Amino acid sequence: MQFRSLDDIRSACRDLPAGNETSAAAAAARQDQLTKPTGSLGQLEALAVWLARWQGQAVPRLDDVSVIVFAGNHGVTAQGVSPYPAAVTAQMVANYARGGAAINQLATLAQAKLTVVPLDLDRPTADFTGAPAMDVAQFLDAVNAGYDAVPARCALLALGEMGIGNTTAAAAIAAALLGGDAASWVGRGAGIGDDGLRLKQEVVDMALARHRAVLGDPLAVAMSLGGRELAAILGATVAARRHGIPVLLDGFVCTAAVLPLLKLNADALSHCQAAHVSAEAGHRALLAAMKLNPLLDLGMRLGEASGAAAAILLLRAAVACHAGMATFAEAGVAERSGP
Amino acid sequence: MQFRSLDDIRSACRDLPAGNETSAAAAAARQDQLTKPTGSLGQLEALAVWLARWQGQAVPRLDDVSVIVFAGNHGVTAQGVSPYPAAVTAQMVANYARGGAAINQLATLAQAKLTVVPLDLDRPTADFTGAPAMDVAQFLDAVNAGYDAVPARCALLALGEMGIGNTTAAAAIAAALLGGDAASWVGRGAGIGDDGLRLKQEVVDMALARHRAVLGDPLAVAMSLGGRELAAILGATVAARRHGIPVLLDGFVCTAAVLPLLKLNADALSHCQAAHVSAEAGHRALLAAMKLNPLLDLGMRLGEASGAAAAILLLRAAVACHAGMATFAEAGVAERSGP
Repeated sequence: MQFRSLDDIRSACRDLPAGNETSAAAAAARQDQLTKPTGSLGQLEALAVWLARWQGQAVPRLDDVSVIVFAGNHGVTAQGVSPYPAAVTAQMVANYARGGAAINQLATLAQAKLTVVPLDLDRPTADFTGAPAMDVAQFLDAVNAGYDAVPARCALLALGEMGIGNTTAAAAIAAALLGGDAASWVGRGAGIGDDGLRLKQEVVDMALARHRAVLGDPLAVAMSLGGRELAAILGATVAARRHGIPVLLDGFVCTAAVLPLLKLNADALSHCQAAHVSAEAGHRALLAAMKLNPLLDLGMRLGEASGAAAAILLLRAAVACHAGMATFAEAGVAERSGP
Repeated sequence: MQFRSLDDIRSACRDLPAGNETSAAAAAARQDQLTKPTGSLGQLEALAVWLARWQGQAVPRLDDVSVIVFAGNHGVTAQGVSPYPAAVTAQMVANYARGGAAINQLATLAQAKLTVVPLDLDRPTADFTGAPAMDVAQFLDAVNAGYDAVPARCALLALGEMGIGNTTAAAAIAAALLGGDAASWVGRGAGIGDDGLRLKQEVVDMALARHRAVLGDPLAVAMSLGGRELAAILGATVAARRHGIPVLLDGFVCTAAVLPLLKLNADALSHCQAAHVSAEAGHRALLAAMKLNPLLDLGMRLGEASGAAAAILLLRAAVACHAGMATFAEAGVAERSGP
């Protein structure tokens, strides 16, 4: 167990390792020698430098990439916030185990190892319209489960989630920590209709009113309005930072899950990239508020790390170019001479 | 030789094969049965359906993917429109042959076969500020070279180009066929400075004035203001349509190269996807004018099919999910039941 109290987490967030600027500078210098106009690979160049910084090596590698999907169940589903029954969380976990879900295909394509971590699926969090979703012990268990799921050595970690009802929790966290009413953050999730959407907004507004006293405390918000899989993503993100592992964040829920870290330390997510902006209503605003620049914009809204796995492909493109291209000198190509 | 006259090309453009709507409908029906909320893979779903439509099979395949890069030299470089000497075109072709360029790494990563087609590099087109870039015979040779470079059977074709000076030609074609002055379409290409940018705009305005009489004729524009690699891309795009091969278009130059086809037939590019929007100034407006929705937005501006090769990865993701995912029935996952 990594964290024995909320203060342990706060303390870890005050003391996060910095990136390796020597490696980053060496990677940037190499980019300028490769046979292309300077900067012409755009984000692919920036991603290679970012990987170098957080892996601490001038030529980044992607030989072992991990995708972890955390799954949890939510008491708030009793309010009717999802068009799918809560039983689907466990059914989808079984689908992952059999290889039938989108993330199975995408992780295989991206040559990444997929790990699915179900978190007490038979013990949903409390309905947070009436009580905190988790007590301190439950929250710490979930954060530690996330922390411990991260391998000590790994080139890249893609994080995602599954949990019927969890876009409601994510919207509540965003509203609690960034302001704005529920309507600014609540979206259709797995595809709720117009009446359901209004209900979902009311549920979030109720939850915000119920937990008004703790909205100034990022970890209390994660505990009161979040869920186990969101807490695990938070823990995994801290673990990756400590282990020197760059992180790809999936969609709306995953982004909201790490928002409390950013509130604790403005630099806490420098080792993370937003893999994509999802079609979920609040995600674009959430990314903008967190100064995260998404790599993909494909209208995806599935979760289960699907957007993060797709973005692994772009990081592979970045690393392939950075490691494999010839320099101007090696190739005998003239450098710029004109205006 | 496919085309013996400009009228042969016009005639081909009037009579292009339609997509297979039966295959597309079957692919769309399968998407709705897979274990995810309907539509939640966003563009990945639409791409699978598009591939099905143009491959004419309900479950699209990507077993043999081709990348073709056409290279040409441009007389207009005598005006000083590029910061790189024209000799770099041939030097980069040699770099492709040795495997040292970005496209080599990206094509390998995307499991695509790379073919580079140099087009009379020792015989640049005429400086189009003073004369048509090509005469009819030269233009037809280049269009036919592009047509003949396309394999008769292939699951997907990614097109790109290399040619010092060719963003000037692309800007001239865009201005000629879409209106607006040079400043609306001219960008920094391989990285020209402020003085060079002004010069490049003047060069394009000169060319538009010189060829004013033919600006209403899309093929005359391609011949007078284009280049051999652009003409080859035009020919290859027609060949792909006839062979039932979906096409990924690379950046600004590649998009401008097929604009004359769209002017000849509003449906001529339905088998094409814009792989990305590049950082070249005019590309976003060009795509919007052509109603092409780019898959990636990564600030790339290298050309040589690099953006198209990166987008192959997304098509692989689309096909992996479409072909590999379990249906709700197969997986025993409950479908939606709620609001």
